[in-house]
Amino acid sequence: MRYDTISFLSDYGLADEFVGVCKAVIRQLAPGAAVIDLTHEIAPHDVRAGSLALVRAAQYLPDGVVLAVVDPGVGTHRRAVAVEVAGGESVFVGPDNGLLAPAVAMLGGADRAVALTNEDLQLAAPGPTFAGRDVFAPAAAHLCAGTPLEDLGDPIDPITLLPAVLPLTREEDGRLAAEALWVDRYGNVQLNVDADELATLGAVEIGAPVTVRFGSTVRTAKRARTYADIRTGEIGLVIDSYGLVSVCLDRRSASAELGLGAGAAVTLEVPTS
Amino acid sequence: MRYDTISFLSDYGLADEFVGVCKAVIRQLAPGAAVIDLTHEIAPHDVRAGSLALVRAAQYLPDGVVLAVVDPGVGTHRRAVAVEVAGGESVFVGPDNGLLAPAVAMLGGADRAVALTNEDLQLAAPGPTFAGRDVFAPAAAHLCAGTPLEDLGDPIDPITLLPAVLPLTREEDGRLAAEALWVDRYGNVQLNVDADELATLGAVEIGAPVTVRFGSTVRTAKRARTYADIRTGEIGLVIDSYGLVSVCLDRRSASAELGLGAGAAVTLEVPTS
Amino acid sequence: MRYDTISFLSDYGLADEFVGVCKAVIRQLAPGAAVIDLTHEIAPHDVRAGSLALVRAAQYLPDGVVLAVVDPGVGTHRRAVAVEVAGGESVFVGPDNGLLAPAVAMLGGADRAVALTNEDLQLAAPGPTFAGRDVFAPAAAHLCAGTPLEDLGDPIDPITLLPAVLPLTREEDGRLAAEALWVDRYGNVQLNVDADELATLGAVEIGAPVTVRFGSTVRTAKRARTYADIRTGEIGLVIDSYGLVSVCLDRRSASAELGLGAGAAVTLEVPTS
Repeated sequence: MRYDTISFLSDYGLADEFVGVCKAVIRQLAPGAAVIDLTHEIAPHDVRAGSLALVRAAQYLPDGVVLAVVDPGVGTHRRAVAVEVAGGESVFVGPDNGLLAPAVAMLGGADRAVALTNEDLQLAAPGPTFAGRDVFAPAAAHLCAGTPLEDLGDPIDPITLLPAVLPLTREEDGRLAAEALWVDRYGNVQLNVDADELATLGAVEIGAPVTVRFGSTVRTAKRARTYADIRTGEIGLVIDSYGLVSVCLDRRSASAELGLGAGAAVTLEVPTS
Repeated sequence: MRYDTISFLSDYGLADEFVGVCKAVIRQLAPGAAVIDLTHEIAPHDVRAGSLALVRAAQYLPDGVVLAVVDPGVGTHRRAVAVEVAGGESVFVGPDNGLLAPAVAMLGGADRAVALTNEDLQLAAPGPTFAGRDVFAPAAAHLCAGTPLEDLGDPIDPITLLPAVLPLTREEDGRLAAEALWVDRYGNVQLNVDADELATLGAVEIGAPVTVRFGSTVRTAKRARTYADIRTGEIGLVIDSYGLVSVCLDRRSASAELGLGAGAAVTLEVPTS
Repeated sequence: MRYDTISFLSDYGLADEFVGVCKAVIRQLAPGAAVIDLTHEIAPHDVRAGSLALVRAAQYLPDGVVLAVVDPGVGTHRRAVAVEVAGGESVFVGPDNGLLAPAVAMLGGADRAVALTNEDLQLAAPGPTFAGRDVFAPAAAHLCAGTPLEDLGDPIDPITLLPAVLPLTREEDGRLAAEALWVDRYGNVQLNVDADELATLGAVEIGAPVTVRFGSTVRTAKRARTYADIRTGEIGLVIDSYGLVSVCLDRRSASAELGLGAGAAVTLEVPTS
């Protein structure tokens, strides 16, 4: 086999049999390939959330194929693509709608790319709405089984791949204008702010206070090392396992209790003493 | 190994460890068998929904064992069965309550069947309520490992297997009386109507209007090629990837917004111009 | 390989990519190891629920590594441990917070244990909050690949491992004071009462009445063999597939309809005729 692992992310959910059918297709075309489910519970059509989950996982994935499907434009003229990275160590397969872009960039950018136009390597289907089964899973499996990238379809210039638009922070008058990227299962709210930016604001020490503003809410949080170090009634800013600042409570959901969700604008400031 | 893949569907859910324990049992009896999860989120006891998911998947499954458990009658005298299809290419294992019947029929019907009465190939258990662990998963694993079908229990006449009762459409005065089969994760509502039936009504062209009635609701939908071709405020009828007509909105749930759920009676008619 | 199977339980959920990333890490360190998901939907931080799921599964697990992560104290001084049982047939890997203890005890107790202090066998990480990825999954994978237990860190006396506190029943004046352990997907409520205790109370025969009290509720249940033997309007006490007494309705949720949840105190008594 050329590749022996397919890392698979989608918004298919686990209630329908979509994921299982994709795996059944893969099993027949590349019987020896292992499939690792990253997650299939990306909210329906939420390309941004899918791209963020993919980029959080990217550096931990084994060499091989990364199959990612969040595809509101299925059946339209949006391109289906395969994108080779890291000198061929990995290939991303999915729609060209920005979903793959941040992970591709994190792994050094696209070396080569093709549009999945070769219908001989796809399943015939009565309708165009399940590209995971008919187009993407077959492409991922054929790559594992040794089909060269260029056989999957027409070459495209990687520079034409749709980029992702990830939010950047902005500093203004000692305030850092940031954004909530992700709320995890525990209700921790990850911001697009890293430890260095927090230190630049002046919050270096554990316990340092930081004013957090979002919507009409103004709260004082404290820098904390881990969740269990946050006292009852306190809000913690923890450098999470991705190196980013998360707004957290201990054993409770910061998102639910503070009313702070993914996509919200958040401003951080160190109060003058 | 006789078979190397078990495709597994159930209503066990993923919150409890039921599915994991079935796989642990399989791992010990047939270490080399791969298990493909079709879905385990069939609503509790919903045999019909399970049978429909199974039939949607059936033609995409690799040769091997299909293990399906939606079993409200567990522990009663309902039969546990193994049903061979396609000259032995696949064997369905599950309760004889109609769950397997549509998929078995789609694959050409039952060649042979046995009741799972050989307790030597089952796990001893303190109670009768977890047949997946104690009866069905062991049967699936033993089949993979090479145990002949007839060793699993007493032969039964396939004609005595409980059939499924799937709803048929009915045409009356130019109206097609249909039924909603399935609501998928995205809220698309699949009807038991295929593209030919829709064409017979007179809705051949993309954009052709169709009057859709259910409950006290009357709406005009338009035939559409894919989801993204449906304009805001419009209802689309898309030939989905199973060849059936689905009632859809673009990036929103038709089921939620129209109040149309699985099992509902739906009438289609082409309006006279 | 020393071990070829990792049975994996956590409270990570399946909406985030946590589980997938742990598997990606395992795939690289022990490519041949199979991972069996027991469940990842333990309620966040619910160590007791995790330990009960693990003990229900324990006797059905293949030899190998059991990786269990419900870890509200992540990043604090709670120990991360690996615990060998059954003469080395299996090793439990997880936090030392009581999660592993009941399953370890069921399999005969700990032979040897180490704290996971060897950082050379862990992933470097910017923050301490994802020990599954950085500490526990690597330990599980290294064990599979042949790393001896003692290389993972400092030996610890198994007697110092945190025990679990599982609720015991108490008999008083012919009443059995019990506790609801678990509500399964179907709404069946498992009590910490086994068939012998029920018989000692005097409820031996199928159909025997038992008075069930919880909160301010008093109901009469009947001993039943399986769910489908419970008539409409009746409450059944079924010896479940773990040998414990469950409070059940047929095809409906006893938990929801009776208002009886995990952790509730329940008293059983056989009425005098």
